[in-house]
Amino acid sequence: MKTEKLYYGAAYYDEYMPHDRLLKDMEMMKKAGLNLIRIAESTWSTWEPEDGVFDFTHLHRMLKASQEAGISVIVGTPTYAIPAWLVRKYPDILALTHNGQELYGRRQNMDITHPGYLKHAERIIRRLMEEVKPYPHIIGFQIDNETKPYDACGPRVQAMFVEYLKKQYPDINDFNDEYGLNYWSNRVQNWDDMPDVRGTINGSLAAEFAHFQRGLVTGFFRWQADIINEYRRPDQFLTHNFDYSWRGYSFGFQPDANQYDAAEALDVAGADIYHLSEERLTGAEISFGGDVARSLKKGNYFVLETEAQGNHGWLAYPGQLRLQAFSHLASGANCVEYWHWHSIHNSLESYWKGILSHNLKENATYRECMTIGADFARLSDTLKNLKKENKIAMMMSNRSNTAFRQFPAGEISDHNEIVRWLYDACYHLNLEMDMINDAETDLSQYRLIILPSLYALSKEKIERLNAYVKNGGCLIASFRTAFADTQLKIYADDQPFGMTECFGMTYDQFTLPGKTSLTGNAVAFPEKPRLSEWMELLIPKEGTEVIAGYDNPFWKDYAAVTCHKYGAGMAAYIGCYFDGGSLERLLAVLLERFGIALPEERFPLIRKTGINDDGEQITYFFNYSGEAIRYEIPADSTELISGEAFPAGETKTLEPWGFHILKW
Amino acid sequence: MKTEKLYYGAAYYDEYMPHDRLLKDMEMMKKAGLNLIRIAESTWSTWEPEDGVFDFTHLHRMLKASQEAGISVIVGTPTYAIPAWLVRKYPDILALTHNGQELYGRRQNMDITHPGYLKHAERIIRRLMEEVKPYPHIIGFQIDNETKPYDACGPRVQAMFVEYLKKQYPDINDFNDEYGLNYWSNRVQNWDDMPDVRGTINGSLAAEFAHFQRGLVTGFFRWQADIINEYRRPDQFLTHNFDYSWRGYSFGFQPDANQYDAAEALDVAGADIYHLSEERLTGAEISFGGDVARSLKKGNYFVLETEAQGNHGWLAYPGQLRLQAFSHLASGANCVEYWHWHSIHNSLESYWKGILSHNLKENATYRECMTIGADFARLSDTLKNLKKENKIAMMMSNRSNTAFRQFPAGEISDHNEIVRWLYDACYHLNLEMDMINDAETDLSQYRLIILPSLYALSKEKIERLNAYVKNGGCLIASFRTAFADTQLKIYADDQPFGMTECFGMTYDQFTLPGKTSLTGNAVAFPEKPRLSEWMELLIPKEGTEVIAGYDNPFWKDYAAVTCHKYGAGMAAYIGCYFDGGSLERLLAVLLERFGIALPEERFPLIRKTGINDDGEQITYFFNYSGEAIRYEIPADSTELISGEAFPAGETKTLEPWGFHILKW
Amino acid sequence: MKTEKLYYGAAYYDEYMPHDRLLKDMEMMKKAGLNLIRIAESTWSTWEPEDGVFDFTHLHRMLKASQEAGISVIVGTPTYAIPAWLVRKYPDILALTHNGQELYGRRQNMDITHPGYLKHAERIIRRLMEEVKPYPHIIGFQIDNETKPYDACGPRVQAMFVEYLKKQYPDINDFNDEYGLNYWSNRVQNWDDMPDVRGTINGSLAAEFAHFQRGLVTGFFRWQADIINEYRRPDQFLTHNFDYSWRGYSFGFQPDANQYDAAEALDVAGADIYHLSEERLTGAEISFGGDVARSLKKGNYFVLETEAQGNHGWLAYPGQLRLQAFSHLASGANCVEYWHWHSIHNSLESYWKGILSHNLKENATYRECMTIGADFARLSDTLKNLKKENKIAMMMSNRSNTAFRQFPAGEISDHNEIVRWLYDACYHLNLEMDMINDAETDLSQYRLIILPSLYALSKEKIERLNAYVKNGGCLIASFRTAFADTQLKIYADDQPFGMTECFGMTYDQFTLPGKTSLTGNAVAFPEKPRLSEWMELLIPKEGTEVIAGYDNPFWKDYAAVTCHKYGAGMAAYIGCYFDGGSLERLLAVLLERFGIALPEERFPLIRKTGINDDGEQITYFFNYSGEAIRYEIPADSTELISGEAFPAGETKTLEPWGFHILKW
Repeated sequence: MKTEKLYYGAAYYDEYMPHDRLLKDMEMMKKAGLNLIRIAESTWSTWEPEDGVFDFTHLHRMLKASQEAGISVIVGTPTYAIPAWLVRKYPDILALTHNGQELYGRRQNMDITHPGYLKHAERIIRRLMEEVKPYPHIIGFQIDNETKPYDACGPRVQAMFVEYLKKQYPDINDFNDEYGLNYWSNRVQNWDDMPDVRGTINGSLAAEFAHFQRGLVTGFFRWQADIINEYRRPDQFLTHNFDYSWRGYSFGFQPDANQYDAAEALDVAGADIYHLSEERLTGAEISFGGDVARSLKKGNYFVLETEAQGNHGWLAYPGQLRLQAFSHLASGANCVEYWHWHSIHNSLESYWKGILSHNLKENATYRECMTIGADFARLSDTLKNLKKENKIAMMMSNRSNTAFRQFPAGEISDHNEIVRWLYDACYHLNLEMDMINDAETDLSQYRLIILPSLYALSKEKIERLNAYVKNGGCLIASFRTAFADTQLKIYADDQPFGMTECFGMTYDQFTLPGKTSLTGNAVAFPEKPRLSEWMELLIPKEGTEVIAGYDNPFWKDYAAVTCHKYGAGMAAYIGCYFDGGSLERLLAVLLERFGIALPEERFPLIRKTGINDDGEQITYFFNYSGEAIRYEIPADSTELISGEAFPAGETKTLEPWGFHILKW
Repeated sequence: MKTEKLYYGAAYYDEYMPHDRLLKDMEMMKKAGLNLIRIAESTWSTWEPEDGVFDFTHLHRMLKASQEAGISVIVGTPTYAIPAWLVRKYPDILALTHNGQELYGRRQNMDITHPGYLKHAERIIRRLMEEVKPYPHIIGFQIDNETKPYDACGPRVQAMFVEYLKKQYPDINDFNDEYGLNYWSNRVQNWDDMPDVRGTINGSLAAEFAHFQRGLVTGFFRWQADIINEYRRPDQFLTHNFDYSWRGYSFGFQPDANQYDAAEALDVAGADIYHLSEERLTGAEISFGGDVARSLKKGNYFVLETEAQGNHGWLAYPGQLRLQAFSHLASGANCVEYWHWHSIHNSLESYWKGILSHNLKENATYRECMTIGADFARLSDTLKNLKKENKIAMMMSNRSNTAFRQFPAGEISDHNEIVRWLYDACYHLNLEMDMINDAETDLSQYRLIILPSLYALSKEKIERLNAYVKNGGCLIASFRTAFADTQLKIYADDQPFGMTECFGMTYDQFTLPGKTSLTGNAVAFPEKPRLSEWMELLIPKEGTEVIAGYDNPFWKDYAAVTCHKYGAGMAAYIGCYFDGGSLERLLAVLLERFGIALPEERFPLIRKTGINDDGEQITYFFNYSGEAIRYEIPADSTELISGEAFPAGETKTLEPWGFHILKW
Repeated sequence: MKTEKLYYGAAYYDEYMPHDRLLKDMEMMKKAGLNLIRIAESTWSTWEPEDGVFDFTHLHRMLKASQEAGISVIVGTPTYAIPAWLVRKYPDILALTHNGQELYGRRQNMDITHPGYLKHAERIIRRLMEEVKPYPHIIGFQIDNETKPYDACGPRVQAMFVEYLKKQYPDINDFNDEYGLNYWSNRVQNWDDMPDVRGTINGSLAAEFAHFQRGLVTGFFRWQADIINEYRRPDQFLTHNFDYSWRGYSFGFQPDANQYDAAEALDVAGADIYHLSEERLTGAEISFGGDVARSLKKGNYFVLETEAQGNHGWLAYPGQLRLQAFSHLASGANCVEYWHWHSIHNSLESYWKGILSHNLKENATYRECMTIGADFARLSDTLKNLKKENKIAMMMSNRSNTAFRQFPAGEISDHNEIVRWLYDACYHLNLEMDMINDAETDLSQYRLIILPSLYALSKEKIERLNAYVKNGGCLIASFRTAFADTQLKIYADDQPFGMTECFGMTYDQFTLPGKTSLTGNAVAFPEKPRLSEWMELLIPKEGTEVIAGYDNPFWKDYAAVTCHKYGAGMAAYIGCYFDGGSLERLLAVLLERFGIALPEERFPLIRKTGINDDGEQITYFFNYSGEAIRYEIPADSTELISGEAFPAGETKTLEPWGFHILKW
């Protein structure tokens, strides 16, 4: 979705304030150039403190004050955190999960399919939508927040799952066959015998349940969108705050929702992107999260949450906040919104600080925000709606993610480990990419598609990929790609299933590397990379280039990395796992084989490009390090922050954590 | 409480013995100089094997035999370990905790507020008190043992908690405001909606519940004391065996009871002090535990339990048992009692050995006890009732302890980590101190008060500390002091709240140090100490001395340690965390600024002093190492163990793990 | 049990196959020389998909096809994995354990004493036995699979336990005395008061419950054997697939069943032996598991399961599969059967691969099996029924195993840690041994008996060991041997109880070694071995040789390892724990004292010997390393694989992972 300007803002909670300072806050926001707040998504119990008793005092206060201050608003539905009275009314509204019964307290712990939950959620959404009708400065609505199934698997949800299975398998024998339930006496001959799925040792069944749970999220989005659509004006958009798999920060693709499916109900994708800071700031999560968010709706996105002072240990060095804000824009964001305006004085996230510290006064962070706000306003027309035209895509798959949880590769039980391994190597090489759904049917726009150990691929998808290569596309796949079908049933055929012709090799054995190292192409591996977790014993066909092999004398006859011309395209396969630095060098070799040019810049110098509304080329150069970097200007251009002319070929210096924006 | 002599003894359990050897044991005790046993506190099911069926055979056997042997007795009430029949009668007597339902088996797993428990506990206490009436050699009674709330939080306890809250907050809106319950929809508008507190993510509410639980202990003490007081003779004292936070040994201040409050029901504080041994013996726990115990009633205390052979791996080197016994006296103990006389042949603590091993014969440990018993008897009049007059105090706070559990500083989730960091540095510097309650109103007797990251301080306490400094006192506070109010609501003002004038600095930001080191005063930091966990960006006011700063170029403008003259006193603030050795050097610098003289001796040479009943100066020198130490005699004195005259200025040798006691 | 030939085979599951390929499989098996399959033990729900509905299609298919192919069959009863409908019928059939309630899904999670389970198990066994009657090529039956009590401790099982205790202790006071229940108020004066044993902190009671649980397994074996015996032909044997304690591979003696008792119901012991591979292959588990299995019935045994490709990371190097197969024979196996023929395409063990990979085609593993099958067939008459006549035995004890779980020695909470410490040192020294039950009464056939920290020994067993030494036997015991009685009540006497005369030393104290090292015999300890976990302060009697002492100056007066002549024999005692390499050297010294000759070969060169049916001496030499080894031929002999004559004294080369079989 295109916007008329860049948004810069913060989540705001008048209802959390230790004393009334709403007007003071609006005044401080204006001074800092903030033009957007997001409100209302967390505090159902404030809007409805008792069953059927509503109190929108804080809501109207915020809306009125922001209207007067000229600050736009996104209103969130408050359904991701339920009030205590609702749990008292329906005790089973709290999810029963694989880990047992949830207790009341934290958010996102309920069963989103519970009829009592849905009934009351609908009522508060409708009441809220009625309340906010009069305010013209509300630009959009956010459905819920970081919605997931919260692993609800109580009896009612499991009964829904059985109904879902029945529909897919009218003949229960097909169900038993597909899931291999004869194993360990797990056969179910009568749907009534279906046991508690939480105990299953059948990875296929567990994976299908996870898939079913993701479907609950998609349905929930549709349901909320339908309600909100009854109320919203045509100029008001619908968004959601999508989150990522979490490792103390936004690490990878979200496993518990199918964000591509869910995003269909939306106008614009929103995202919350959190990352490490100070010397551990790399920009990789900003880039990764942005590429995912942009790909969900194939267009510009909103960063609905990112860190101001952030969690303990994330306090940005001077300058880093600016670097981060413009990095979001460079990935295609039209909005950068902090979580949150002010630090909180009680409860869980007191040390997840906002722009303001607990004393609620101007501070170093606030003063840096002022510079960002001013630059955003000044450069809004030039930088908004950046259009990316990437020639590389990485293919994402929830099914494959689940597969790694059920069937780890060595110690790797998180598919995102592989995704980030490949993504980060590309990020270091300044290869910009889209993150496409494995259901994507139009692959022709890409020169290169990367398959990060896409374990679960249907025959149809495999054929699509074969055709893509045959027609001239390039493919890089890592180990265990195309190993099993959608239900994680391993294909009873040569591996990689259906792609042995495409990759020009096959294998049926694999092992732990022990002390085995990769050996081969001297350019790629000046030192032999030590393997870990997984190695496949690849048997190349004639005419397939062996890019690397194994130095273990007992496995020396097998290949480790292969490259093969197939039809008009080329397909490379990486059959093992090793360090990211070596992967970078390997990718460079493969791209050379493919005839795809690499940018010259390398991390920590990051280059991001796009086309603005006026068709101008916008190129960002970011220095993600604490040391100054010198680099060569690629074209006669104007640097937008300074307004200076930067002639092509000249060498310029990026200060530590500094950046340039070139327009030509 | 003063006593007429030093006590030396052991916990004794005739009821655990594999065969009758009571008279043999009494004889062996007498031979070793033991003059006290503690009995009866663990074996309710022996005294009352079935509901209402009493059997005091073992009790009378022990009392008669000890009476004949001239050995005094402390009788404990057996209420900390309940019989199986009581659980069968009231299954819900076993605590429901944050970790789920307790099973029968271990001690200290019940709900001490359960009416059935209290009814039966009262009956067994009254029956026991009746039984022991005839025995003149019972010198005192012990209430229960190491009493804590055992995290009972079943429905009835939670209902009590709601009643407790209602009384504090007649207007439920005040409750919501103080705890910030609007956050994440946690608002409770109707007390009946109050959810299970076990699930709360509100640190303030969780902390208040912990405070409420501690109050249950205080109430339990009063209740038991009232019963016992109906029976005891005026010459019989009331005590309790207080324990410490546990890390495999007695590590820090007990978080789960307010020992100052609980001790009000007692005549004399008792303590169980366990510590590492052999090369890991430092004496720090003996010193720390003793300073706490002495401070509870501001007088001499009883060591009711300490190790003989102890847990596996604690077997003392020859001489260490003597060193330990006299170290207890040097901290103000009037009694050293081992847990326990004999090793146990069954059950959990079979490898927590007593004086005697499982063969119940004289052994190396017993033979060393004989020497201690003889010395205690010989020096009793000189060494008993040692009076300590410390000029330094450390302030303790249960609330601040809970705060660190709810809001860790980096990885530090145990406030005692900070307490011991500061205490041990002082111990190494031979700075003796009292451990005062944060409710203490008379601070004027101290030259220096140390605030170990006292996170939760009321405005009243903050004012008291400001006044103390203004009137000439010295203060050392570590990071996060005065950060929040009593309910852990962070003060919405400049930090440290209410003390920016006193400390002459303020801050509103803090972070993880990463690779940042402390830099500054060369005397204190010959090498730059590497920081961890926490660093505050202190902004000193004019006139405030910056003792240390940060070497990180991005944080170089901030202070790390400050020292400030305020009124007639001085206040230093340590805004970060680093190693204990550097802290010692820093404290030495700060004491120099304050004009407080440091003893010349340093760990492993430990010096402890006091005044005896005759007004004589008693000075202990302990060698806490396996190497001999030479030191200078500070005054013309008599060494009490050897009886030799030690002239001032002469150099004497302390053998490995040896000690001297000087009187002048 | 002797067999007429060597068996080579695999577990086979027609019911797991993704498509019909039964005849293809049989053909491939024949080609590879496989002459045995095991079937039917895992798939109750296939045989009885609904309550009382039977379907033996797959069974008859497999039996007919194997009959035609000339492949023998072992039929297993399918009772170790229950169908979902049975759990729906009897929800409490799933075990309630120390860790809570089992869910349906995995195998081996039921209460094997549940009447509903037994009723239905009996029905399926009887139906199966009826079905298989017509097939002459069924050579035997397997009872259940890896049977254990699965820690069932629900109310009914606990009631059985109380009945069991009542019978042993008609006077409940004796029960209280033996278990020391007065401790911590655990006394039970009325059997009705008996609390949930899962919560007990009484190690003796917990251990007795574990013993009781093991008894359930023995009873279960007798029960199943009685049923099967009604049906089986005289030529059909009864076996069981015994497993070992598990550390990701078969590590030690099974703690949860008394395999000696259970094996009484069988004709031949079976075993599943899994081990690490590639560079981590040592042969130790093959040797250990084989020695245990052979000792259960004192004769040849069946390896009913061992790895083909195995779990991830176990893929054998070329040649290793051969090495392993013949190593099994060298320990006395008459059968080597893989788990399993084909890899599985769904569920838990998809990555625990069989001979065939998921593509079900000939592969490298299959091709190596072909060579083994051919050699087995060719050498069957010479190598079958190998008779071992070991002069060394290690004594096993379930009670002592439980003791270490209840009372760890330092960090050692698994008794098998000690068992393998001693076993592996002997394995490295090529000392072959039997693994005898501690109930064994005839010890006279052994020159040396090793007691691996046999903590729990009855007075009767102690006397038997004393007599054995007095009569000329040699004994090596490690620390904590003879410490407690059968109920883990520590003996209230000098340690080692009843054996101080035999060992010529005593002790009553022990500690953690800290930095203490072993010092002494220079041959054994060229470098001082660092101790860990446990050290006893041994006090040798006059005439006892101190083989090693402690280098800690505070413990220097005590002995660490002693050796003593007692009657006509000798007894050595190792009072501490250290590395395995030093133990090897120590054992060599002790054997020299005993006058027992050591083989010259050392690991990785492994020598195994026995006598074949023709009374010929068969000697195997195995190279458990990736480097070639040269060794001297001990006698004029024929090498059976090559058929070459190997003259005595000649030096021959073993290839990496190679082996020779010498006959003379």
